[in-house]
Amino acid sequence: MNEAIRTIIESRVSSNYFDANQVITDTAIEELVRLATRAPSAYNFQNWKFIAVRSFAAKSRLAAAAFGQQKIRDAAVSFIICGTLKAYEQLPAALAPAVDAGLLPRAVAESWARAARDAHAGNPQLQRDEAFRSGSLAAMVLMLAAEGMGLTSCPMSGFDPEAVSREFGLSPGEVPVMLVAVGHASSGKFSQKPRRAVRDVLSYK
Amino acid sequence: MNEAIRTIIESRVSSNYFDANQVITDTAIEELVRLATRAPSAYNFQNWKFIAVRSFAAKSRLAAAAFGQQKIRDAAVSFIICGTLKAYEQLPAALAPAVDAGLLPRAVAESWARAARDAHAGNPQLQRDEAFRSGSLAAMVLMLAAEGMGLTSCPMSGFDPEAVSREFGLSPGEVPVMLVAVGHASSGKFSQKPRRAVRDVLSYK
Repeated sequence: MNEAIRTIIESRVSSNYFDANQVITDTAIEELVRLATRAPSAYNFQNWKFIAVRSFAAKSRLAAAAFGQQKIRDAAVSFIICGTLKAYEQLPAALAPAVDAGLLPRAVAESWARAARDAHAGNPQLQRDEAFRSGSLAAMVLMLAAEGMGLTSCPMSGFDPEAVSREFGLSPGEVPVMLVAVGHASSGKFSQKPRRAVRDVLSYK
Repeated sequence: MNEAIRTIIESRVSSNYFDANQVITDTAIEELVRLATRAPSAYNFQNWKFIAVRSFAAKSRLAAAAFGQQKIRDAAVSFIICGTLKAYEQLPAALAPAVDAGLLPRAVAESWARAARDAHAGNPQLQRDEAFRSGSLAAMVLMLAAEGMGLTSCPMSGFDPEAVSREFGLSPGEVPVMLVAVGHASSGKFSQKPRRAVRDVLSYK
């Protein structure tokens, strides 16, 4: 087992306390998003987008839509990780880089687009499930990447989705999946809370 | 940036081809689940369970519920990652290890249990969203941990949820969030498909 990845997984902790005096560069934010989008998604949908909230005004609006959580004001940036509901509509664009690079035959990309449309069109629950799957996979990579950059993070599902959508101009075809605050820890490092025993959550078939 | 974590994120690739002759030990399976459960979840719900499908008979049943995907038969194990819908009912049990270790005051754990009940009871869409968030976060950690162990993986959302639930005895309060095949790659390593440019998925506010 690679010790670095094990250590990062075991030491990552959702932090409520960020140093409000420290910022993160655009370069670091872009690297976090670049790595987050290395997460897998069905059909390589990449059915996500990221809003990096870091201005005082935008943080205030996001905090108001998230029960006033102070960490949104303190963290250098909070990402609104959004999922795309009608992902099949954007699949040709999502696959274009792979087709252009000669890594995915155009006919295969077109067959995926048809299959995705057949499965997803007219099935809003599947669209939403897929948005939550992809957005959450990307969020987890983003948090581990932040840990690898010496930053700390905190995922939040405690927010008013309608208020977030309204305040940040999400379209009806987009849903906020998760907020992830990222910044510098303010006061040392807490320990991860213990989890239930593996035997209580694992069975073999 | 920690190079090991960056390399693992960039080199992980969803593999369709597994060496059907190689197995994975119980110890490795348990380590994968132990690390997967280090993922965060709202209130530390840990609203997940893992079914490790590895017998010939169980693989056949799972493949039949997942459009006959051959990789389920070939991979050493496929995890059915399940989410718990009424997570608030099990929250006291999920928090018990932290309370017992003196890391979480009992009164705080009790207030979280009340808050979770208030938010989730009677809100089936939030229950489902939360199950998909937590299950997907855990799935991503599991895949990166597998990568760190020199294994390869493939997430699958292409399955019939009702058939999986029926064949593997999920309760009405559980939902299959994702399947993740894990095993040894059969024939070298493919490259990750290119993603859309960061500028196309990131905006600042």
